[in-house]
Amino acid sequence: MGSQEPMLFGTQRINAAGHLEIGGCDTVALAQEFGTPLYVLDEEHIRQRCRCYRQAFRDRLPEVEVAYAGKALLVSALCRIVEQEGLALDVASAGELYTALQTNFPPARIKLHGNFKSDQELLMALRESVGRVVLDSLTEIQRLSALAQAEGREVPVLMRVAPGIKTQTHTFIQTGQLDSKFGLGLATSAAREGVRLTLESPGLKLRGLHCHIGSQLFGLDAFQKTAELMVEFMSQIRDECGVVLEELDLGGGLGISYTPEDTPPTIAELADIISSGLRATCEQFDYPLPRLILEPGRSIVGTAGTTLYRVGPVKEIPGVRTYVAVDGGLSDNPRPALYDAEYTAIIANKADQPSTQPVRVAGKHCETDTLLAEVTLQPVEEGDLMAVFSTGAYNYSMASNYNRFCRPAMVLVGEGRAEVIVERESLEDLVAQDVIPERLR
Amino acid sequence: MGSQEPMLFGTQRINAAGHLEIGGCDTVALAQEFGTPLYVLDEEHIRQRCRCYRQAFRDRLPEVEVAYAGKALLVSALCRIVEQEGLALDVASAGELYTALQTNFPPARIKLHGNFKSDQELLMALRESVGRVVLDSLTEIQRLSALAQAEGREVPVLMRVAPGIKTQTHTFIQTGQLDSKFGLGLATSAAREGVRLTLESPGLKLRGLHCHIGSQLFGLDAFQKTAELMVEFMSQIRDECGVVLEELDLGGGLGISYTPEDTPPTIAELADIISSGLRATCEQFDYPLPRLILEPGRSIVGTAGTTLYRVGPVKEIPGVRTYVAVDGGLSDNPRPALYDAEYTAIIANKADQPSTQPVRVAGKHCETDTLLAEVTLQPVEEGDLMAVFSTGAYNYSMASNYNRFCRPAMVLVGEGRAEVIVERESLEDLVAQDVIPERLR
Repeated sequence: MGSQEPMLFGTQRINAAGHLEIGGCDTVALAQEFGTPLYVLDEEHIRQRCRCYRQAFRDRLPEVEVAYAGKALLVSALCRIVEQEGLALDVASAGELYTALQTNFPPARIKLHGNFKSDQELLMALRESVGRVVLDSLTEIQRLSALAQAEGREVPVLMRVAPGIKTQTHTFIQTGQLDSKFGLGLATSAAREGVRLTLESPGLKLRGLHCHIGSQLFGLDAFQKTAELMVEFMSQIRDECGVVLEELDLGGGLGISYTPEDTPPTIAELADIISSGLRATCEQFDYPLPRLILEPGRSIVGTAGTTLYRVGPVKEIPGVRTYVAVDGGLSDNPRPALYDAEYTAIIANKADQPSTQPVRVAGKHCETDTLLAEVTLQPVEEGDLMAVFSTGAYNYSMASNYNRFCRPAMVLVGEGRAEVIVERESLEDLVAQDVIPERLR
Repeated sequence: MGSQEPMLFGTQRINAAGHLEIGGCDTVALAQEFGTPLYVLDEEHIRQRCRCYRQAFRDRLPEVEVAYAGKALLVSALCRIVEQEGLALDVASAGELYTALQTNFPPARIKLHGNFKSDQELLMALRESVGRVVLDSLTEIQRLSALAQAEGREVPVLMRVAPGIKTQTHTFIQTGQLDSKFGLGLATSAAREGVRLTLESPGLKLRGLHCHIGSQLFGLDAFQKTAELMVEFMSQIRDECGVVLEELDLGGGLGISYTPEDTPPTIAELADIISSGLRATCEQFDYPLPRLILEPGRSIVGTAGTTLYRVGPVKEIPGVRTYVAVDGGLSDNPRPALYDAEYTAIIANKADQPSTQPVRVAGKHCETDTLLAEVTLQPVEEGDLMAVFSTGAYNYSMASNYNRFCRPAMVLVGEGRAEVIVERESLEDLVAQDVIPERLR
């Protein structure tokens, strides 16, 4: 691998000192002030992506709701930003719902997802009057109906359909095929049965259908095909049940760049193909254009996140390779281990130097803990600062305390200002849940 | 797959009610009292394993130290049990060290590991007088020496060697090969250089060598080969440097049963092969038998842990398979996703019924989240209680708050008594680190 121009996103740039800068903040100074590992979140970039999504779809369709998929990253300050940008919000647990509500996120703009919502979660959604509950199974339809009646409420719902679309992505994040834990199958009688049951169930108001075909997708055909299948199914429901469902939620899934080899479609391209697919199919089946809902997560926050690590021992093993250790790893970014995910990185304090040194970057956990299996960096020494790009999604949200590491802090940067939005955990926090029974003391 | 006898460990049994019982506690009652998901830890089984390790090696060698590898599971109550059983303790971070110290674990019986120990971690080890620091790189030798001198202390150390042994296990937990971030290579000049540097460095007292060839190992030959290589290297050090190193730490790695197909060697078999290998090689090189150190983690706590889950929607997809949802998954047990790890399970409230239903068990996270890809269970319905076996190691220790799930509680059971040793996280705990900057409120 030869030298490569670094791949910069949002407000990232290389400043006069030759350092990586994000949101007008020198990353070397950020590491100094807040310690490492450090998650850095680019506020302007996130707001840009939110606006871009809303604009692209509003330009092409009359009624669109963009709901941020909280599972990618949900911290209180981000809820505020998403709220200010006029997006709706997807949550997938009591914890995500609680996080949003305690920031005063308007409940009407929240959707509750999940393949197995507990009664506690359904009750919380009912009592807080969340905008939509996305039903996932026949028994859940019955449980929610019973709870809604007991509470004397009516709850607007969508029903999740497994459209039978197989996508080109990691098996773990393929979710639209028939062989899935999610939703009710289009190919079997399950989706039809679910619609009938929902329409019959007191306390439930069926607003439309939901589907989600996968994550980190680069091909647009699957989105178009899905939109067509869903509209066709909605027209069948109209014909069979006499009900015109007005909402169609196509989920999220747009891929992002982790490495220069990743060239995802733009949001505008996504909007083009979905809107034209929708319009054509609606015309074909003489179906009114539904209100479209989209659920981007990764493509809102993914490239807005950068993780800063301190470089530790650099071990050259002659004839084998060079290992570069950093002061984080599997606990703050499990994606390389979970999905064989690749990332790019630079030495933030030498960002203006050519990257000429092929290395493997290993975390500091007590196992192999490979963070970047093969990457070419600026000449690297112990004490340097490494920046790993595109860590905004599914890093902090999936972080653990493995090896009793304290989870890193997160700072929001913009206009030269850096604010802590997640405090670094302390050693005391690590034992906060521990209890020693009296007899063992 | 036909019906199978459940594989029971420690105090697990099926009681008169047909329920799974652990430590004299009915698991149905445990789930009722403490909620689900719930980690259940079998105290007697852990103590048994600790005693078995000490006994097996003491029967065969004059001087042995068994150090529990905390990375497998380190919570305060377990530190007390391990301490009471006379084991030493391995820690791999400031957090693990802090956890042990605040339970009054004797520092002299603690070893600090890690491929990149921060100055803060090294200082903590120095000031608390931990028993051994296991040096992992040339620069670390220099850093620790400088810190020890600055503190006016002498610190006993081991040096980690990469013996160049390749084992049959998952790549992530293969750690003894030359191509590794860990240790200093035997095959290159690195290990020799490390020994010389350590011997020359003021403030460091080199007690011996350390190696660790991998985890979840089933073959014993690698252990024997490693013991032989290490003794040979120790005799070379004696011949070249005139120093007789007195300690040899062979790490851990003994495998456990996750499924009936897993048939690991017994602790006695491990002790046999290591002790005979050691004796033979010491005789060959006329080297005094070193004090042997072992570091079992998984093989102490793995089979002592069971996770209880509430069963949610059961979806039969005709012609495909049946999905059974449970109320946990990737966040409380990331091993299936990380290592393709397999587990066995039973329906705890129907434990006396034959298992006849092939299903896939999926967690409740907002992705595929497969917990058991293929398992045959008792006839299962929503509301049942599922017990997944052998979850004592690398489950809680690697748990996350993905999807803002609250991490489960852990109870220690024995003699009919159940005590909470890790409290369930609350919704408030999830946002404890969150900060919303004033301007975003």
